[in-house]
Amino acid sequence: MKNKTVAILGVGLIGGSLGKAILRRGLFKKVIGVGRNPEKLEKALKARAITEFSTNLKAVSSADLVILCTPVARIKETFKKLSKLLKPGCIVTDAGSTKEEIVSAAGKFLPEDIFFVGSHPIAGSEKSGIDHSGPELFKGAACVVTPVKTTNKQALLEIKKLWSRLGGKIVSMSPAEHDRVVALTSHVPHFLASALTLSAVRKNKNDRLLIGKGFRDTTRVASGNPEVWCEIAQTNKKNIKEGLDELIKNIRKIKAEIGGTKLRRTLAKARDLREGL
Amino acid sequence: MKNKTVAILGVGLIGGSLGKAILRRGLFKKVIGVGRNPEKLEKALKARAITEFSTNLKAVSSADLVILCTPVARIKETFKKLSKLLKPGCIVTDAGSTKEEIVSAAGKFLPEDIFFVGSHPIAGSEKSGIDHSGPELFKGAACVVTPVKTTNKQALLEIKKLWSRLGGKIVSMSPAEHDRVVALTSHVPHFLASALTLSAVRKNKNDRLLIGKGFRDTTRVASGNPEVWCEIAQTNKKNIKEGLDELIKNIRKIKAEIGGTKLRRTLAKARDLREGL
Repeated sequence: MKNKTVAILGVGLIGGSLGKAILRRGLFKKVIGVGRNPEKLEKALKARAITEFSTNLKAVSSADLVILCTPVARIKETFKKLSKLLKPGCIVTDAGSTKEEIVSAAGKFLPEDIFFVGSHPIAGSEKSGIDHSGPELFKGAACVVTPVKTTNKQALLEIKKLWSRLGGKIVSMSPAEHDRVVALTSHVPHFLASALTLSAVRKNKNDRLLIGKGFRDTTRVASGNPEVWCEIAQTNKKNIKEGLDELIKNIRKIKAEIGGTKLRRTLAKARDLREGL
Repeated sequence: MKNKTVAILGVGLIGGSLGKAILRRGLFKKVIGVGRNPEKLEKALKARAITEFSTNLKAVSSADLVILCTPVARIKETFKKLSKLLKPGCIVTDAGSTKEEIVSAAGKFLPEDIFFVGSHPIAGSEKSGIDHSGPELFKGAACVVTPVKTTNKQALLEIKKLWSRLGGKIVSMSPAEHDRVVALTSHVPHFLASALTLSAVRKNKNDRLLIGKGFRDTTRVASGNPEVWCEIAQTNKKNIKEGLDELIKNIRKIKAEIGGTKLRRTLAKARDLREGL
Protein backbone atom coordinates (compact mmCIF):
# COMPACT_ATOMS: atom_id res chain seq x y z
CA MET A 1 0.00 0.00 0.00
CA LYS A 2 3.07 2.23 0.11
CA ASN A 3 2.02 4.33 -2.86
CA LYS A 4 -1.58 4.42 -1.82
CA THR A 5 -3.52 7.06 0.06
CA VAL A 6 -5.27 6.82 3.40
CA ALA A 7 -7.78 9.34 4.69
CA ILE A 8 -8.38 9.63 8.42
CA LEU A 9 -11.62 11.29 9.46
CA GLY A 10 -11.15 12.88 12.88
CA VAL A 11 -7.62 13.51 14.12
CA GLY A 12 -8.06 13.21 17.90
CA LEU A 13 -6.44 10.63 20.16
CA ILE A 14 -7.22 7.61 17.96
CA GLY A 15 -7.05 9.27 14.54
CA GLY A 16 -3.88 11.15 15.43
CA SER A 17 -2.23 8.02 16.81
CA LEU A 18 -3.21 6.09 13.68
CA GLY A 19 -1.65 8.72 11.45
CA LYS A 20 1.55 8.82 13.48
CA ALA A 21 1.77 5.01 13.60
CA ILE A 22 1.15 4.66 9.85
CA LEU A 23 3.69 7.33 8.85
CA ARG A 24 6.31 6.18 11.35
CA ARG A 25 6.09 2.68 9.85
CA GLY A 26 5.91 3.91 6.25
CA LEU A 27 2.67 2.02 5.55
CA PHE A 28 1.24 4.85 3.44
CA LYS A 29 2.98 7.83 1.94
CA LYS A 30 -0.04 10.09 1.89
CA VAL A 31 -2.18 10.49 4.99
CA ILE A 32 -5.01 12.97 4.53
CA GLY A 33 -6.56 14.31 7.71
CA VAL A 34 -10.20 15.26 7.28
CA GLY A 35 -12.11 17.23 9.89
CA ARG A 36 -14.15 20.32 10.58
CA ASN A 37 -11.68 22.31 12.66
CA PRO A 38 -8.70 23.64 10.61
CA GLU A 39 -6.74 24.48 13.77
CA LYS A 40 -6.88 20.87 14.97
CA LEU A 41 -5.88 19.65 11.52
CA GLU A 42 -2.99 22.12 11.41
CA LYS A 43 -1.85 20.83 14.78
CA ALA A 44 -2.03 17.22 13.52
CA LEU A 45 0.04 18.20 10.49
CA LYS A 46 2.70 19.80 12.68
CA ALA A 47 2.69 16.70 14.90
CA ARG A 48 3.37 14.57 11.78
CA ALA A 49 0.15 12.63 12.24
CA ILE A 50 -0.93 13.52 8.66
CA THR A 51 0.77 14.70 5.49
CA GLU A 52 -2.03 17.00 4.32
CA PHE A 53 -5.52 17.96 5.38
CA SER A 54 -8.88 19.20 4.27
CA THR A 55 -12.04 20.46 5.93
CA ASN A 56 -13.98 19.22 2.90
CA LEU A 57 -15.17 15.62 2.99
CA LYS A 58 -14.61 15.45 -0.77
CA ALA A 59 -10.92 14.95 0.01
CA VAL A 60 -11.73 11.25 0.58
CA SER A 61 -12.30 10.71 -3.16
CA SER A 62 -8.60 10.00 -3.77
CA ALA A 63 -8.29 7.59 -0.84
CA ASP A 64 -7.72 3.83 -1.14
CA LEU A 65 -8.42 3.40 2.55
CA VAL A 66 -10.64 5.52 4.78
CA ILE A 67 -10.52 5.22 8.57
CA LEU A 68 -13.40 6.79 10.49
CA CYS A 69 -12.30 8.13 13.86
CA THR A 70 -15.23 10.48 14.32
CA PRO A 71 -17.63 10.20 17.28
CA VAL A 72 -19.90 7.13 17.14
CA ALA A 73 -23.12 9.13 16.76
CA ARG A 74 -21.92 10.92 13.64
CA ILE A 75 -20.85 7.80 11.73
CA LYS A 76 -24.23 6.99 10.15
CA GLU A 77 -24.50 10.48 8.72
CA THR A 78 -20.93 10.18 7.46
CA PHE A 79 -21.66 6.89 5.64
CA LYS A 80 -24.46 8.57 3.70
CA LYS A 81 -22.18 11.37 2.59
CA LEU A 82 -19.22 9.06 1.87
CA SER A 83 -21.32 6.79 -0.37
CA LYS A 84 -21.33 9.53 -3.02
CA LEU A 85 -17.66 10.42 -2.71
CA LEU A 86 -15.56 7.27 -2.40
CA LYS A 87 -13.87 5.66 -5.38
CA PRO A 88 -14.87 2.09 -6.29
CA GLY A 89 -12.79 -0.51 -4.47
CA CYS A 90 -12.08 1.78 -1.54
CA ILE A 91 -11.76 0.02 1.82
CA VAL A 92 -13.42 1.69 4.81
CA THR A 93 -12.93 0.88 8.47
CA ASP A 94 -13.61 2.67 11.74
CA ALA A 95 -12.45 2.79 15.35
CA GLY A 96 -15.83 3.13 17.04
CA SER A 97 -16.49 1.82 20.55
CA THR A 98 -19.70 0.04 19.53
CA LYS A 99 -20.14 -2.07 16.44
CA GLU A 100 -23.70 -3.33 15.76
CA GLU A 101 -25.20 0.01 14.72
CA ILE A 102 -22.13 1.05 12.75
CA VAL A 103 -21.74 -2.23 10.83
CA SER A 104 -25.43 -2.30 10.03
CA ALA A 105 -25.37 1.36 8.89
CA ALA A 106 -22.36 0.65 6.66
CA GLY A 107 -24.24 -2.23 5.05
CA LYS A 108 -27.22 0.01 4.50
CA PHE A 109 -25.60 3.20 3.23
CA LEU A 110 -22.37 2.24 1.46
CA PRO A 111 -22.54 0.95 -2.14
CA GLU A 112 -21.47 -2.60 -2.95
CA ASP A 113 -18.15 -1.59 -4.51
CA ILE A 114 -17.01 0.00 -1.24
CA PHE A 115 -15.67 -2.56 1.25
CA PHE A 116 -16.39 -1.89 4.91
CA VAL A 117 -14.77 -3.74 7.82
CA GLY A 118 -15.75 -2.80 11.39
CA SER A 119 -12.84 -2.27 13.78
CA HIS A 120 -12.35 -1.31 17.40
CA PRO A 121 -8.83 -0.89 18.78
CA ILE A 122 -9.06 -1.20 22.59
CA ALA A 123 -6.58 1.59 23.07
CA GLY A 124 -8.48 4.64 24.22
CA SER A 125 -8.13 6.35 27.57
CA GLU A 126 -9.89 9.03 29.53
CA LYS A 127 -7.70 11.50 27.67
CA SER A 128 -8.54 12.80 24.23
CA GLY A 129 -7.10 14.95 21.47
CA ILE A 130 -4.01 14.92 19.28
CA ASP A 131 -1.84 16.09 22.20
CA HIS A 132 -2.17 12.66 23.82
CA SER A 133 -1.74 10.68 20.60
CA GLY A 134 1.32 8.60 19.87
CA PRO A 135 2.61 6.14 17.26
CA GLU A 136 2.76 3.27 19.76
CA LEU A 137 -0.82 3.56 21.08
CA PHE A 138 -1.88 0.30 19.42
CA LYS A 139 1.18 -1.72 20.41
CA GLY A 140 -0.04 -4.76 22.32
CA ALA A 141 -3.64 -3.54 22.24
CA ALA A 142 -6.48 -5.85 21.25
CA CYS A 143 -7.74 -4.69 17.86
CA VAL A 144 -11.17 -6.15 17.27
CA VAL A 145 -12.47 -6.72 13.76
CA THR A 146 -16.15 -7.54 13.36
CA PRO A 147 -16.76 -9.21 9.99
CA VAL A 148 -20.28 -10.15 8.91
CA LYS A 149 -21.54 -12.39 6.07
CA THR A 150 -21.28 -9.61 3.52
CA THR A 151 -17.74 -8.54 4.49
CA ASN A 152 -15.26 -8.73 1.61
CA LYS A 153 -12.57 -11.30 2.45
CA GLN A 154 -9.71 -9.35 0.86
CA ALA A 155 -10.71 -6.14 2.64
CA LEU A 156 -10.89 -8.02 5.94
CA LEU A 157 -7.38 -9.35 5.35
CA GLU A 158 -6.05 -5.87 4.57
CA ILE A 159 -7.59 -4.39 7.74
CA LYS A 160 -6.24 -7.22 9.88
CA LYS A 161 -2.82 -6.62 8.34
CA LEU A 162 -3.07 -2.89 9.12
CA TRP A 163 -3.79 -3.39 12.84
CA SER A 164 -1.11 -6.10 13.05
CA ARG A 165 1.49 -3.81 11.54
CA LEU A 166 0.59 -1.14 14.09
CA GLY A 167 1.36 -3.67 16.84
CA GLY A 168 -2.21 -4.72 17.62
CA LYS A 169 -3.41 -8.20 18.56
CA ILE A 170 -6.23 -9.17 16.23
CA VAL A 171 -9.46 -10.41 17.81
CA SER A 172 -12.31 -11.38 15.50
CA MET A 173 -15.91 -11.52 16.70
CA SER A 174 -19.41 -10.63 15.55
CA PRO A 175 -20.63 -7.04 16.07
CA ALA A 176 -23.25 -8.30 18.56
CA GLU A 177 -20.71 -10.27 20.57
CA HIS A 178 -18.33 -7.31 20.58
CA ASP A 179 -21.00 -4.97 21.93
CA ARG A 180 -22.02 -7.44 24.64
CA VAL A 181 -18.43 -7.89 25.82
CA VAL A 182 -17.39 -4.22 25.78
CA ALA A 183 -20.57 -3.29 27.66
CA LEU A 184 -19.16 -5.35 30.55
CA THR A 185 -15.46 -4.57 30.21
CA SER A 186 -15.61 -0.90 29.23
CA HIS A 187 -19.03 0.78 29.31
CA VAL A 188 -20.33 -0.51 32.66
CA PRO A 189 -16.97 0.29 34.38
CA HIS A 190 -17.21 3.82 33.03
CA PHE A 191 -20.71 4.49 34.34
CA LEU A 192 -19.81 2.80 37.57
CA ALA A 193 -16.79 5.07 38.04
CA SER A 194 -19.10 8.05 37.48
CA ALA A 195 -21.62 6.70 40.01
CA LEU A 196 -18.88 6.08 42.59
CA THR A 197 -17.48 9.57 42.10
CA LEU A 198 -20.94 11.06 42.62
CA SER A 199 -21.39 8.94 45.77
CA ALA A 200 -18.03 9.58 47.39
CA VAL A 201 -16.58 12.94 46.41
CA ARG A 202 -17.92 15.59 48.75
CA LYS A 203 -17.09 19.26 48.76
CA ASN A 204 -15.68 18.88 52.28
CA LYS A 205 -11.93 19.39 52.02
CA ASN A 206 -11.16 17.07 54.94
CA ASP A 207 -13.04 14.23 53.25
CA ARG A 208 -11.15 14.73 50.02
CA LEU A 209 -7.82 14.48 51.81
CA LEU A 210 -8.65 10.86 52.61
CA ILE A 211 -8.89 9.90 48.97
CA GLY A 212 -5.97 7.61 48.17
CA LYS A 213 -4.49 5.89 45.15
CA GLY A 214 -7.10 3.13 45.22
CA PHE A 215 -9.98 5.56 44.79
CA ARG A 216 -8.12 7.49 42.12
CA ASP A 217 -7.55 4.34 40.09
CA THR A 218 -11.09 3.04 40.54
CA THR A 219 -12.60 6.32 39.31
CA ARG A 220 -9.99 7.38 36.75
CA VAL A 221 -12.17 6.63 33.71
CA ALA A 222 -14.88 8.96 35.06
CA SER A 223 -12.76 11.79 33.65
CA GLY A 224 -13.76 10.75 30.13
CA ASN A 225 -15.62 13.05 27.74
CA PRO A 226 -19.36 13.06 28.69
CA GLU A 227 -20.44 13.59 25.09
CA VAL A 228 -18.50 10.59 23.82
CA TRP A 229 -19.93 8.42 26.59
CA CYS A 230 -23.50 9.54 25.92
CA GLU A 231 -23.06 8.43 22.33
CA ILE A 232 -21.63 5.09 23.38
CA ALA A 233 -24.59 4.65 25.75
CA GLN A 234 -26.98 5.57 22.96
CA THR A 235 -25.59 2.88 20.65
CA ASN A 236 -25.33 0.07 23.23
CA LYS A 237 -28.32 0.67 25.51
CA LYS A 238 -29.56 -2.87 26.03
CA ASN A 239 -26.19 -4.44 26.81
CA ILE A 240 -25.19 -1.63 29.17
CA LYS A 241 -28.48 -1.77 31.09
CA GLU A 242 -28.19 -5.54 31.43
CA GLY A 243 -24.59 -5.14 32.57
CA LEU A 244 -25.55 -2.55 35.18
CA ASP A 245 -28.31 -4.87 36.45
CA GLU A 246 -25.84 -7.73 36.79
CA LEU A 247 -23.46 -5.40 38.62
CA ILE A 248 -26.16 -4.22 41.04
CA LYS A 249 -26.94 -7.89 41.71
CA ASN A 250 -23.32 -8.54 42.64
CA ILE A 251 -23.11 -5.40 44.81
CA ARG A 252 -26.27 -6.51 46.65
CA LYS A 253 -24.78 -9.97 47.17
CA ILE A 254 -21.63 -8.48 48.70
CA LYS A 255 -23.70 -6.06 50.78
CA ALA A 256 -25.70 -8.98 52.19
CA GLU A 257 -22.44 -10.74 53.06
CA ILE A 258 -20.82 -7.77 54.88
CA GLY A 259 -20.00 -8.90 58.40
CA GLY A 260 -20.79 -12.53 57.59
CA THR A 261 -18.80 -15.65 56.82
CA LYS A 262 -19.51 -15.91 53.07
CA LEU A 263 -17.82 -12.63 52.18
CA ARG A 264 -14.33 -14.08 52.28
CA ARG A 265 -15.10 -16.63 49.57
CA THR A 266 -16.74 -14.03 47.36
CA LEU A 267 -13.80 -11.63 47.68
CA ALA A 268 -11.32 -14.46 47.09
CA LYS A 269 -13.16 -15.43 43.91
CA ALA A 270 -13.03 -11.83 42.67
CA ARG A 271 -9.36 -11.56 43.59
CA ASP A 272 -8.49 -14.74 41.70
CA LEU A 273 -10.37 -13.56 38.61
CA ARG A 274 -8.65 -10.16 38.78
CA GLU A 275 -5.20 -11.64 39.26
CA GLY A 276 -5.81 -13.96 36.33
CA LEU A 277 -6.08 -11.03 33.91
CA MET B 1 13.08 10.30 70.88
CA LYS B 2 16.46 9.32 69.45
CA ASN B 3 17.45 7.26 72.43
CA LYS B 4 14.02 5.78 72.88
CA THR B 5 12.64 2.48 71.73
CA VAL B 6 9.76 1.79 69.36
CA ALA B 7 8.05 -1.56 68.98
CA ILE B 8 6.20 -2.35 65.76
CA LEU B 9 3.64 -5.14 65.96
CA GLY B 10 3.28 -6.72 62.54
CA VAL B 11 6.00 -6.13 59.95
CA GLY B 12 4.05 -6.31 56.69
CA LEU B 13 3.60 -3.51 54.15
CA ILE B 14 2.70 -0.81 56.69
CA GLY B 15 4.79 -2.02 59.65
CA GLY B 16 7.80 -2.68 57.45
CA SER B 17 7.53 0.71 55.77
CA LEU B 18 7.21 2.40 59.16
CA GLY B 19 10.37 0.70 60.41
CA LYS B 20 12.33 1.60 57.29
CA ALA B 21 11.07 5.20 57.36
CA ILE B 22 11.87 5.60 61.08
CA LEU B 23 15.36 4.12 60.81
CA ARG B 24 16.22 5.96 57.58
CA ARG B 25 15.33 9.24 59.28
CA GLY B 26 17.04 8.31 62.55
CA LEU B 27 13.89 8.98 64.61
CA PHE B 28 14.53 5.98 66.90
CA LYS B 29 17.69 3.97 67.38
CA LYS B 30 15.98 0.79 68.44
CA VAL B 31 13.07 -0.61 66.41
CA ILE B 32 11.77 -3.92 67.77
CA GLY B 33 9.71 -5.98 65.37
CA VAL B 34 7.15 -8.15 67.12
CA GLY B 35 5.22 -10.87 65.32
CA ARG B 36 4.33 -14.54 65.26
CA ASN B 37 6.34 -15.66 62.25
CA PRO B 38 10.14 -15.65 62.86
CA GLU B 39 10.87 -15.97 59.13
CA LYS B 40 8.98 -12.79 58.34
CA LEU B 41 10.72 -11.01 61.20
CA GLU B 42 14.11 -12.24 59.99
CA LYS B 43 13.28 -10.89 56.54
CA ALA B 44 12.31 -7.52 58.03
CA LEU B 45 15.61 -7.43 59.93
CA LYS B 46 17.58 -8.13 56.76
CA ALA B 47 15.57 -5.43 54.95
CA ARG B 48 16.58 -2.98 57.71
CA ALA B 49 12.99 -2.36 58.69
CA ILE B 50 13.79 -3.29 62.33
CA THR B 51 16.92 -3.52 64.49
CA GLU B 52 15.84 -6.57 66.48
CA PHE B 53 12.83 -8.82 66.81
CA SER B 54 10.85 -11.08 69.06
CA THR B 55 8.00 -13.51 68.69
CA ASN B 56 7.09 -12.84 72.31
CA LEU B 57 4.74 -9.93 72.96
CA LYS B 58 6.63 -9.27 76.20
CA ALA B 59 9.25 -7.53 74.08
CA VAL B 60 7.02 -4.43 74.14
CA SER B 61 7.80 -3.85 77.83
CA SER B 62 10.90 -1.79 77.00
CA ALA B 63 9.14 0.34 74.38
CA ASP B 64 8.38 4.05 74.72
CA LEU B 65 6.19 3.91 71.64
CA VAL B 66 4.21 0.94 70.31
CA ILE B 67 2.72 0.96 66.81
CA LEU B 68 0.10 -1.68 66.06
CA CYS B 69 0.21 -2.80 62.44
CA THR B 70 -1.62 -6.08 62.97
CA PRO B 71 -4.91 -6.91 61.22
CA VAL B 72 -7.86 -4.87 62.48
CA ALA B 73 -9.72 -7.85 63.95
CA ARG B 74 -6.82 -8.83 66.17
CA ILE B 75 -6.30 -5.40 67.73
CA LYS B 76 -8.85 -5.75 70.58
CA GLU B 77 -7.26 -8.97 71.74
CA THR B 78 -3.85 -7.32 71.52
CA PHE B 79 -4.97 -4.38 73.73
CA LYS B 80 -5.96 -6.81 76.47
CA LYS B 81 -2.58 -8.49 76.39
CA LEU B 82 -0.63 -5.22 76.07
CA SER B 83 -2.36 -3.70 79.10
CA LYS B 84 -0.35 -6.02 81.32
CA LEU B 85 2.98 -5.54 79.54
CA LEU B 86 3.48 -1.87 78.68
CA LYS B 87 5.49 0.44 80.88
CA PRO B 88 3.71 3.47 82.35
CA GLY B 89 3.82 6.52 80.07
CA CYS B 90 4.11 4.41 76.94
CA ILE B 91 2.41 5.89 73.87
CA VAL B 92 0.47 3.50 71.66
CA THR B 93 -0.85 4.13 68.17
CA ASP B 94 -2.05 1.97 65.31
CA ALA B 95 -2.45 1.99 61.53
CA GLY B 96 -5.85 0.32 61.28
CA SER B 97 -8.25 1.02 58.41
CA THR B 98 -11.21 1.59 60.74
CA LYS B 99 -11.14 3.64 63.91
CA GLU B 100 -14.34 3.57 66.01
CA GLU B 101 -14.00 0.01 67.30
CA ILE B 102 -10.26 0.32 67.83
CA VAL B 103 -10.35 3.65 69.68
CA SER B 104 -13.20 2.44 71.87
CA ALA B 105 -11.38 -0.82 72.63
CA ALA B 106 -8.21 1.08 73.53
CA GLY B 107 -10.21 3.22 75.96
CA LYS B 108 -11.70 0.10 77.47
CA PHE B 109 -8.68 -2.18 77.76
CA LEU B 110 -5.61 0.03 78.18
CA PRO B 111 -4.81 1.42 81.66
CA GLU B 112 -4.88 5.19 82.25
CA ASP B 113 -1.10 5.58 82.29
CA ILE B 114 -0.83 4.26 78.71
CA PHE B 115 -1.60 6.91 76.11
CA PHE B 116 -3.40 5.74 72.99
CA VAL B 117 -3.84 7.81 69.83
CA GLY B 118 -5.72 6.31 66.87
CA SER B 119 -4.00 6.68 63.49
CA HIS B 120 -4.65 5.67 59.91
CA PRO B 121 -2.07 6.44 57.23
CA ILE B 122 -3.87 6.33 53.84
CA ALA B 123 -0.96 4.60 52.23
CA GLY B 124 -1.92 0.98 51.71
CA SER B 125 -2.29 -0.74 48.37
CA GLU B 126 -3.57 -4.03 47.05
CA LYS B 127 -0.09 -5.38 47.70
CA SER B 128 1.02 -6.61 51.08
CA GLY B 129 4.08 -7.87 52.91
CA ILE B 130 7.54 -6.56 53.71
CA ASP B 131 8.67 -7.08 50.08
CA HIS B 132 6.51 -4.14 48.97
CA SER B 133 7.41 -1.89 51.90
CA GLY B 134 9.53 1.22 51.53
CA PRO B 135 10.75 4.17 53.60
CA GLU B 136 8.85 6.70 51.46
CA LEU B 137 5.42 5.03 51.64
CA PHE B 138 4.00 7.79 53.82
CA LYS B 139 5.46 10.70 51.86
CA GLY B 140 2.59 12.92 50.80
CA ALA B 141 0.00 10.50 52.21
CA ALA B 142 -2.84 11.70 54.40
CA CYS B 143 -2.16 10.44 57.92
CA VAL B 144 -5.36 10.61 59.92
CA VAL B 145 -5.28 10.93 63.69
CA THR B 146 -8.54 10.41 65.57
CA PRO B 147 -8.34 12.00 69.02
CA VAL B 148 -11.24 11.69 71.45
CA LYS B 149 -12.01 13.52 74.71
CA THR B 150 -9.76 11.25 76.76
CA THR B 151 -6.77 11.46 74.40
CA ASN B 152 -3.62 12.77 76.09
CA LYS B 153 -2.61 16.08 74.44
CA GLN B 154 1.13 15.43 74.64
CA ALA B 155 0.76 11.93 73.16
CA LEU B 156 -1.38 13.35 70.32
CA LEU B 157 1.35 15.90 69.61
CA GLU B 158 4.03 13.19 69.53
CA ILE B 159 2.04 11.04 67.12
CA LYS B 160 1.31 13.98 64.84
CA LYS B 161 5.03 14.78 64.86
CA LEU B 162 5.87 11.18 63.98
CA TRP B 163 3.63 11.07 60.88
CA SER B 164 4.81 14.53 59.84
CA ARG B 165 8.43 13.48 60.02
CA LEU B 166 7.65 10.46 57.84
CA GLY B 167 6.30 12.87 55.20
CA GLY B 168 2.60 12.49 55.97
CA LYS B 169 -0.04 15.21 55.84
CA ILE B 170 -1.88 15.27 59.16
CA VAL B 171 -5.68 15.14 59.07
CA SER B 172 -7.53 15.19 62.37
CA MET B 173 -11.10 13.92 62.71
CA SER B 174 -13.28 11.92 65.08
CA PRO B 175 -13.21 8.11 64.80
CA ALA B 176 -16.87 8.15 63.65
CA GLU B 177 -16.23 10.73 60.96
CA HIS B 178 -13.14 8.84 59.79
CA ASP B 179 -15.08 5.61 59.43
CA ARG B 180 -17.90 7.29 57.54
CA VAL B 181 -15.50 8.92 55.07
CA VAL B 182 -13.27 5.88 54.42
CA ALA B 183 -16.36 3.74 53.88
CA LEU B 184 -17.04 5.93 50.83
CA THR B 185 -13.50 6.57 49.64
CA SER B 186 -11.91 3.19 50.32
CA HIS B 187 -14.23 0.39 51.46
CA VAL B 188 -17.11 0.85 49.01
CA PRO B 189 -14.66 1.19 46.05
CA HIS B 190 -13.05 -2.06 47.10
CA PHE B 191 -16.29 -4.06 47.23
CA LEU B 192 -17.40 -2.41 44.04
CA ALA B 193 -14.23 -3.47 42.26
CA SER B 194 -14.89 -7.03 43.45
CA ALA B 195 -18.49 -6.88 42.22
CA LEU B 196 -17.42 -5.52 38.84
CA THR B 197 -14.79 -8.21 38.47
CA LEU B 198 -17.39 -10.89 39.25
CA SER B 199 -19.75 -9.33 36.68
CA ALA B 200 -17.32 -8.84 33.84
CA VAL B 201 -14.51 -11.37 33.89
CA ARG B 202 -15.59 -14.49 32.07
CA LYS B 203 -13.58 -17.60 31.44
CA ASN B 204 -13.91 -17.02 27.69
CA LYS B 205 -10.46 -16.10 26.40
CA ASN B 206 -11.77 -13.89 23.61
CA ASP B 207 -13.73 -11.80 26.10
CA ARG B 208 -10.69 -11.33 28.29
CA LEU B 209 -8.67 -10.03 25.36
CA LEU B 210 -10.99 -7.03 25.24
CA ILE B 211 -10.10 -5.94 28.74
CA GLY B 212 -8.16 -2.69 28.52
CA LYS B 213 -6.32 -0.34 30.84
CA GLY B 214 -9.55 1.28 32.02
CA PHE B 215 -10.95 -1.99 33.36
CA ARG B 216 -7.63 -2.91 34.93
CA ASP B 217 -7.47 0.39 36.80
CA THR B 218 -11.11 0.27 37.89
CA THR B 219 -10.71 -3.22 39.35
CA ARG B 220 -7.10 -3.07 40.58
CA VAL B 221 -8.04 -2.92 44.28
CA ALA B 222 -10.03 -6.16 43.94
CA SER B 223 -6.67 -7.95 44.18
CA GLY B 224 -6.50 -7.04 47.88
CA ASN B 225 -6.30 -9.67 50.62
CA PRO B 226 -9.83 -11.09 51.22
CA GLU B 227 -9.13 -11.71 54.90
CA VAL B 228 -8.08 -8.10 55.53
CA TRP B 229 -11.16 -6.81 53.73
CA CYS B 230 -13.51 -9.10 55.65
CA GLU B 231 -12.11 -7.64 58.86
CA ILE B 232 -12.54 -4.10 57.58
CA ALA B 233 -16.13 -4.93 56.61
CA GLN B 234 -16.72 -6.44 60.04
CA THR B 235 -15.61 -3.26 61.81
CA ASN B 236 -17.42 -0.75 59.57
CA LYS B 237 -20.63 -2.57 58.62
CA LYS B 238 -23.17 0.22 58.90
CA ASN B 239 -21.20 2.85 56.98
CA ILE B 240 -20.26 0.42 54.21
CA LYS B 241 -23.85 -0.79 53.76
CA GLU B 242 -25.11 2.78 53.61
CA GLY B 243 -22.36 3.64 51.12
CA LEU B 244 -23.27 0.67 48.91
CA ASP B 245 -26.93 1.74 49.01
CA GLU B 246 -26.00 5.26 47.95
CA LEU B 247 -23.87 3.82 45.15
CA ILE B 248 -26.68 1.55 43.92
CA LYS B 249 -28.94 4.63 43.88
CA ASN B 250 -26.47 6.47 41.66
CA ILE B 251 -26.01 3.47 39.35
CA ARG B 252 -29.80 3.22 38.99
CA LYS B 253 -30.00 6.92 38.19
CA ILE B 254 -27.40 6.55 35.45
CA LYS B 255 -29.08 3.41 34.16
CA ALA B 256 -32.39 5.28 33.87
CA GLU B 257 -30.62 8.02 31.94
CA ILE B 258 -28.87 5.72 29.40
CA GLY B 259 -29.99 6.79 25.94
CA GLY B 260 -31.64 9.96 27.27
CA THR B 261 -30.77 13.64 27.45
CA LYS B 262 -30.01 13.90 31.18
CA LEU B 263 -27.03 11.52 31.07
CA ARG B 264 -24.64 14.12 29.74
CA ARG B 265 -25.15 16.43 32.72
CA THR B 266 -24.73 13.58 35.19
CA LEU B 267 -21.51 12.38 33.54
CA ALA B 268 -20.20 15.96 33.33
CA LYS B 269 -20.84 16.45 37.04
CA ALA B 270 -18.95 13.24 37.84
CA ARG B 271 -16.10 14.22 35.53
CA ASP B 272 -15.78 17.66 37.17
CA LEU B 273 -15.72 16.11 40.64
CA ARG B 274 -13.12 13.56 39.54
CA GLU B 275 -10.91 16.12 37.85
CA GLY B 276 -11.12 18.31 40.95
CA LEU B 277 -9.35 15.69 43.06
